[in-house]
Amino acid sequence: MTAPTPAEVDAAMRLALDQAQRVKGATYPNPPVGAVILSAEGEVLGVGGTAPTGGPHAEVVALGEAGERAVGGTAVVTLEPCNHHGRTPPCVDALIQARVATVVYAVADPNPVAAGGADRLRGAGIDVVAGVCAEEVAAGPLREWLHKQRAGRPHVTWKFATSVDGRSAAADGSSQWITSEAARADLHVRRAACDAIVVGTGTVDIDDPTLTARLPGGGLAERQPLRVVVGMREISPEANVLNEDSHTMVIRTHDPHEVIQALSDRTDVLLEGGPTLAGAFLRAGVIDRILAYVGPILLGGPVTAVDDVGVPSIARALRWRYDGVDRIGPDLLLSLVPG
Amino acid sequence: MTAPTPAEVDAAMRLALDQAQRVKGATYPNPPVGAVILSAEGEVLGVGGTAPTGGPHAEVVALGEAGERAVGGTAVVTLEPCNHHGRTPPCVDALIQARVATVVYAVADPNPVAAGGADRLRGAGIDVVAGVCAEEVAAGPLREWLHKQRAGRPHVTWKFATSVDGRSAAADGSSQWITSEAARADLHVRRAACDAIVVGTGTVDIDDPTLTARLPGGGLAERQPLRVVVGMREISPEANVLNEDSHTMVIRTHDPHEVIQALSDRTDVLLEGGPTLAGAFLRAGVIDRILAYVGPILLGGPVTAVDDVGVPSIARALRWRYDGVDRIGPDLLLSLVPG
Repeated sequence: MTAPTPAEVDAAMRLALDQAQRVKGATYPNPPVGAVILSAEGEVLGVGGTAPTGGPHAEVVALGEAGERAVGGTAVVTLEPCNHHGRTPPCVDALIQARVATVVYAVADPNPVAAGGADRLRGAGIDVVAGVCAEEVAAGPLREWLHKQRAGRPHVTWKFATSVDGRSAAADGSSQWITSEAARADLHVRRAACDAIVVGTGTVDIDDPTLTARLPGGGLAERQPLRVVVGMREISPEANVLNEDSHTMVIRTHDPHEVIQALSDRTDVLLEGGPTLAGAFLRAGVIDRILAYVGPILLGGPVTAVDDVGVPSIARALRWRYDGVDRIGPDLLLSLVPG
Repeated sequence: MTAPTPAEVDAAMRLALDQAQRVKGATYPNPPVGAVILSAEGEVLGVGGTAPTGGPHAEVVALGEAGERAVGGTAVVTLEPCNHHGRTPPCVDALIQARVATVVYAVADPNPVAAGGADRLRGAGIDVVAGVCAEEVAAGPLREWLHKQRAGRPHVTWKFATSVDGRSAAADGSSQWITSEAARADLHVRRAACDAIVVGTGTVDIDDPTLTARLPGGGLAERQPLRVVVGMREISPEANVLNEDSHTMVIRTHDPHEVIQALSDRTDVLLEGGPTLAGAFLRAGVIDRILAYVGPILLGGPVTAVDDVGVPSIARALRWRYDGVDRIGPDLLLSLVPG
């Protein structure tokens, strides 16, 4: 009996990973998953990502594309196929019915309701291989969803743009632009993939941002995250953040925990707040990832990217760990996770 | 006739580059150069770096190791062999006398007195190949020396340690340690390779540093750079920077240009000043490279790594370019050059 080679399976998983990344942000409340169906000879027969809410899961999309030829083939999926009836029937049923010989997945489903997929597949005589590219998937498309499953609250990424010397604006407050067009385009891709963007009333007052996800040409991305404005101050009814490009939630509090609570049905929250709001979130310990776009410039002066983070002395420094360092055009993108 | 393969020549140049890096700091006023002698069959016969002042140049050291077997071989050198009588006879004479068949070098000698080596070698019937690994050598061991030849003044590297949010200490002034032992060891290697370390009187007052180059075990490195203290304030006669571990120069000025002038016989100056002195050097435009050790921590608070750099608005930002991003233990080392 023939089967795909390990290299073919690995390449298929990377294709599935890419599919998952593409649908990220559009699948709420389902996880963003990618799937690829290989023939026994290792040929790609079908490729799919989770469809928007209520639509088919990735496996079903990929099986649909493969058709009859999936029989005896291999399904390669970024997440353990689900075993429960939600808005759609269990994916394991679809895989068993399609008579694939093997299922390869990256990450096990931590959700007790949906889990058990691997066992059911094995019970149906299907070979199951777990853990292929698990780290890349867990740190990539499934990062926020896995965090939500584990912690019971959304994953919060604090993004900021800074000069090498830690400034978010020049002495006169001007800040357009600290980073390059390439870095800003990267941010817009991340905005389109998240569920909510959070800023403080101070940022709305000073910068009057629209907080939309835009395409490289300047048009609106197909999907817009919820815009969230946090703070006790009134914001102008003319503020761009209230325009019709997306929905906007105003949360009248200074407490980051209340903000998280108000967004508890979300998975992937992007905090773009200024120094005050970012400081409050850092002091509250509710940031799960930091993304720092660092332009190769020096500004000096009084406007720092963050002010008080509750650290009186070096012994109490907030200690993180770099989990990614990338060059984006002339800039750097540093990713940090709690150390 | 046999000759080393291109891969053998390339490997020999990397070995020579490594030799040059090892002697960096010890060769003043000669450039730090490395040389390797290959047999016609590509075998390494001799390896050498420039000896301390007055001693033989790299080519002569390597030829000495190779002996008679150098005849018909290839000399691989990081810098065009010199053609002048200084404290030692010209290297081109030694190469001609050793009857090598080929000389390969990385960087041409920009010094009009010493240059012309390639022409003389060709005139003596030796094959000459220029430019192998030229970029690595010019950005590496010869960076500061080439700068001095071109600009007529020492190369100034500003080094600072910072948190991700641009702080050089916590709110209470504590700063030990922002970066890891690995990053500090890297700095000590760089200190040992430079000619002078510059700080302001403020740093001497607050941190009382010894400003020596230390080995990983804590002992003093064999060679110690000159310690330079800049500013109008008196420093305590008990200050560590005045101890017997190395020489110390006190320059009573606030003007970076005067400091550079006072160090005009040096090649490689390391500025480790605090916010005020670094700001003055940045405003004066006399920094040629920035080395930022960035620890994965957040500190917040009032103590920034640099204060006023003379930038009123974003349009006048000091624009640099990343020319290196390395992980050192848990930290990042960013290298920037003028953009």
